[in-house]
Amino acid sequence: MLAGHPGVRSETRSKVLRALAETNYQPNAMARAMKTSQTGSIGVVVARLSNPLYPAMLQVIGTQLARAGLRMVVWDSEHGGDEPASIALRQGIVDGVILTTATAASPFLRDAMNSRTPVVLVNRTVEGCVCDQISSDNAGGAARIAHYLLGCGRRIALIGGSLEPSTIRERERGFREALTRENEPLPLQLYQRVDTFSHASGREAILRLLDLAAPPDAVFCANDVIALGAIDGARNRGLRVPEDLWVVGYDDIEMASWDAYDLTTVRQPLEEMARLATELLVERMRKPGGNAVTHCLPNDLVIRGSTSRTPFPAESGRAKAGNKEKT
Amino acid sequence: MLAGHPGVRSETRSKVLRALAETNYQPNAMARAMKTSQTGSIGVVVARLSNPLYPAMLQVIGTQLARAGLRMVVWDSEHGGDEPASIALRQGIVDGVILTTATAASPFLRDAMNSRTPVVLVNRTVEGCVCDQISSDNAGGAARIAHYLLGCGRRIALIGGSLEPSTIRERERGFREALTRENEPLPLQLYQRVDTFSHASGREAILRLLDLAAPPDAVFCANDVIALGAIDGARNRGLRVPEDLWVVGYDDIEMASWDAYDLTTVRQPLEEMARLATELLVERMRKPGGNAVTHCLPNDLVIRGSTSRTPFPAESGRAKAGNKEKT
Repeated sequence: MLAGHPGVRSETRSKVLRALAETNYQPNAMARAMKTSQTGSIGVVVARLSNPLYPAMLQVIGTQLARAGLRMVVWDSEHGGDEPASIALRQGIVDGVILTTATAASPFLRDAMNSRTPVVLVNRTVEGCVCDQISSDNAGGAARIAHYLLGCGRRIALIGGSLEPSTIRERERGFREALTRENEPLPLQLYQRVDTFSHASGREAILRLLDLAAPPDAVFCANDVIALGAIDGARNRGLRVPEDLWVVGYDDIEMASWDAYDLTTVRQPLEEMARLATELLVERMRKPGGNAVTHCLPNDLVIRGSTSRTPFPAESGRAKAGNKEKT
Repeated sequence: MLAGHPGVRSETRSKVLRALAETNYQPNAMARAMKTSQTGSIGVVVARLSNPLYPAMLQVIGTQLARAGLRMVVWDSEHGGDEPASIALRQGIVDGVILTTATAASPFLRDAMNSRTPVVLVNRTVEGCVCDQISSDNAGGAARIAHYLLGCGRRIALIGGSLEPSTIRERERGFREALTRENEPLPLQLYQRVDTFSHASGREAILRLLDLAAPPDAVFCANDVIALGAIDGARNRGLRVPEDLWVVGYDDIEMASWDAYDLTTVRQPLEEMARLATELLVERMRKPGGNAVTHCLPNDLVIRGSTSRTPFPAESGRAKAGNKEKT
C-alpha cells in the first residue's frame, strides 16, 4: 500500500517494503485499493428517494456501472445532508462521483470539485461548474408543452417550485418564455409555487388554482409527482380529467402511465443519460484532466389521457437537443 | 494499519511499525479504517428499487444509521446480483450489513454469514439462519385481512407469488390458514400466481380472475404494487372499486393512500424495524458474538376506500406480535 503513494518518502517505502518482503506479508484488498486508488466503487448522490424518479435513475445508473465492472455506492442527500458523501470522498473510498441533485449552493459539490476525484453531474446541472454535465433539454421540453396547450386554446396555469435546481428553473423558464413569445404571458395569479415536490403539494396547489374567480382549464406541473397530486385534488373537487381540466407533468415516472392517472408528460432519456455519465466518468478515471464536456439530450412529449388526445399541432413530438429558447 | 490485524505476524508488525516510526509516516483515513476495522459504513442490500417499499425502507434505515453516526452504502441486488456486495464484504469496506431481501437461496447471505461482518436481516427472514432478524407479523397481518373479508361475506381471491421470500410466503400462509380455520378454504381457481411483483402483473392477474364463471368480489394481493395494478385492471374492465370489487394490498407504500387508489392495506412499522436493526448492528459491531435475536413486530390493518368502510368485525385493528397461526 505504499508503492507509488505520493505522500510516502522513498526512504519509508523501501524500509517498509523490505520489512514486508522479509516476512512474506500479503496486503489485503483494501491495501491494494490504496495502492492503485481504484476501489471499484462509484458514489451516486440522489435527493429524494420518495420521488420515484431517483430510484429509476439509480436503476439505470446501477446497470450501466455494473456493465463497466463498477459498484454503485448510493448516498441519499436527504438524510444527514451531503456530509456523509463529503467524508467518504476525503477517505477515498470511491473512484468517482455521479451527482444527480447538484445545485450551486451544494457544499458537497464544492468538496467534490476540490478533491481530485472525477465528478459527473447528471439530471441537474450547475452553470459555471467545471466538470462533465449531462442533462436533457428541460427548457425545450417545457416549451413544447406550452405550445401544445396554447395550440389547443387552453387557459393555462403553472405549478412550480424552488428555482435552485436547474431542472425546475429551466422548465419554468422554457414554459414562460414560450407563452410570452406567443403573446400569452402567464398571469401572476395562474402561478402556484410549492415548497416540496410532493403529491400533497400538488394536491393543495390545484385546489388554490380552482378557487380562483377564473380558474384554469389546463395546468403544467414542474414534475410528475406534483401532477399526480393535482389530478387527485381536482377529482376530489368533483372535476373530471381531461373533460374539465387538463394536467401535464414532467419526467414520465412509472406511475404516470398507470390507468388511474394516464398522465401526459415529458420523458427524459434516462438510459442514454446514465450510459453517457458512466462513459465520461470511466474516461476521466483512466485519463484525468482534459476539457469538461456538457451534453443536453433531446426528450419526448408523451401525450396520454390526462389531456385531449389531439395530436401535437405543428411538427411531430420530439424536442431538439440544445434547443435553448431566447426571449 | 497493521496494529492488531490478526493476519499479520507480530514479527512483521514490529518491523513495519519500526520502519514507519523512523520515518514519521502518517497513515491516511483508509489505513486507519484498516487498523480499526471501522469504516463507518454499513452496507444495505435491497431488491427492487422499482417497488416503492424499498426506497421507503432505505429512507428510514438511512435516517437511523445517520443518527448512529454511520453512513449507508446501498446495493441493489437486482443489478449484477449480489456479487458486488459479496466483493465489498471481502474487501472489508463496510462494518456491517443490513439485508432487506434475504432468501435461503441467496449466495450473498451465505458469504455474509461466512465473513466475520455482523449481519442483520430486516423485512425478510430466513429460517435457520443464525443472525439477528427483524420482521413484522406477516402471517398475522394477512390472517386479519382474511377475517375482515370473511366477516363481510365476500367471495375471496388471492394474488400471490414466489414463496421464496419469507414475506410473501408468510402472508399467503397466514391468509390461507385463517380461511381454512373458518371452513372456507381458498378454492384453487381463486388463486393467481404472478412472476414479478409489479403493477402490470397485478393488472393481468385480476383480469384472469374476472374472466372466471364465478368471479371473486374481493381480492387480497400479496403486496401494494400488485393491488394498485389490480384496481387499474378492474376499472379498465368497467368495474367499480369497492362497489363491484374489494381490493386489499400489503405494505402501505406512499401511493396506497393517494385518492385514485385509497387502498386498504397492512402497514408495517418500518421506522421501528429500522431503529431495532441499527441498534442490534451497532451492538454486534461493538461486541461480536452472543446469541442471535429475532423480533417479530405487530402491524396495523389500515381500512380505506378500496373496501367498504365497515369497521373491523371482532376485536380492534392491531395484529399481535409473534401471533403465529397454527392449523
